[in-house]
Amino acid sequence: MLRFSKNHDYSGRLICVEGIDGAGKSTQIELLHSWLVQTGVDVVLTQWNSSELISKTTKKAKKKNLLSGRTFSLLHAVDFADRLERTIIPALKAGFVVLADRYVYTAFARDAAREVDSAWVRNLYSFAIKPDITFYFDVSPKDSLDRICSNRQPKFYEAGMDMKLSRNPYKSYLLFQNRIVEQYKKMVDEFGLISIDANDSIYNKQRLMRQKVAELLKQKNINIEVDTL
Amino acid sequence: MLRFSKNHDYSGRLICVEGIDGAGKSTQIELLHSWLVQTGVDVVLTQWNSSELISKTTKKAKKKNLLSGRTFSLLHAVDFADRLERTIIPALKAGFVVLADRYVYTAFARDAAREVDSAWVRNLYSFAIKPDITFYFDVSPKDSLDRICSNRQPKFYEAGMDMKLSRNPYKSYLLFQNRIVEQYKKMVDEFGLISIDANDSIYNKQRLMRQKVAELLKQKNINIEVDTL
Repeated sequence: MLRFSKNHDYSGRLICVEGIDGAGKSTQIELLHSWLVQTGVDVVLTQWNSSELISKTTKKAKKKNLLSGRTFSLLHAVDFADRLERTIIPALKAGFVVLADRYVYTAFARDAAREVDSAWVRNLYSFAIKPDITFYFDVSPKDSLDRICSNRQPKFYEAGMDMKLSRNPYKSYLLFQNRIVEQYKKMVDEFGLISIDANDSIYNKQRLMRQKVAELLKQKNINIEVDTL
Repeated sequence: MLRFSKNHDYSGRLICVEGIDGAGKSTQIELLHSWLVQTGVDVVLTQWNSSELISKTTKKAKKKNLLSGRTFSLLHAVDFADRLERTIIPALKAGFVVLADRYVYTAFARDAAREVDSAWVRNLYSFAIKPDITFYFDVSPKDSLDRICSNRQPKFYEAGMDMKLSRNPYKSYLLFQNRIVEQYKKMVDEFGLISIDANDSIYNKQRLMRQKVAELLKQKNINIEVDTL
């Protein structure tokens, strides 16, 4: 069985954040990014589903509600492969710290929640390299809904409406995101993700992340102070 | 290991043609199509890389020569998944004979020729169903080149110029198509493809195909005469 398990030996370091929306992971990775820039570390930030090649197609297909779980899964894999080969790996080769807002675990969790076979998805992404650190932001679907949908209705795909779990988008969101959280929780052990309580303060979450990143960079003989927060 | 090996139990039948360009397979499948239409069989014809969802993206990326072997492979898989789920399977469920001009074997052969791991590609397409009959049109790269490029230079990707085998597009075409033919020859046994000598006459090739298709349709209690050629 081909699986996603390849350690990289590039001079850079790959750090990812994962979890469902509303856990504050984008805020945290941006804080981490600013800190690394300030300390003089070469760093790039890359986001899920952002490859220029495919994002228009995905958006168009989403609008038309055309996608089966399988096609959805494959489209994201194209996007990821393109971004890995043209952004992430070249940056790692050049010695950069790459910060990824979502990585393959997003695909593993969402695709499984869409009932796509897990072994198939893990094989699909077996060409990916393992991150050096992945932070998992642990938030309940209820808290996620409260934060994301305080002033708008959940969107069709984020609520998993294509799965026909419920006609009510709020209820569907909870059911669908719950499936995703279940997958993430399994992956914490499977892939050694570092779990962070999303309900902790912004300060505490960032401090923990900086400590872990500082330890990682020490291996590269880069010494940075955590206490600049 | 997940592999491509799933037999279908739909009431329709799936018949494919495979092989490199210039072997006359498109002509033959069109003749087969006309014959089935004339005999009153419900039939649809579907082509490789024709899904509306993705074909524009693929064309754009090809023009810009942006694609790695991996991304190329995944883009074709999206196209295939979309076509399988929205055209091929619904037609088979409705009892149609589906004629496919190229099927997963095209991906297996081309991706391997582009040095993408064969086990990975077979797993990638493990959701596909096995055709009832696949005809492989056996032609040498030299004959293919003579037929395809009698009045034009080989195109960038068909010559495998992305593989940097040779700077001369004609030489590159021969080297690249030869890799593909090697893959096809292995698959004749692996997947039980019916090999057809491309140098045989149009009449003989079509007659052989009609005989095989007539035998297949007899299992469905459809009796058609081969001798209408």
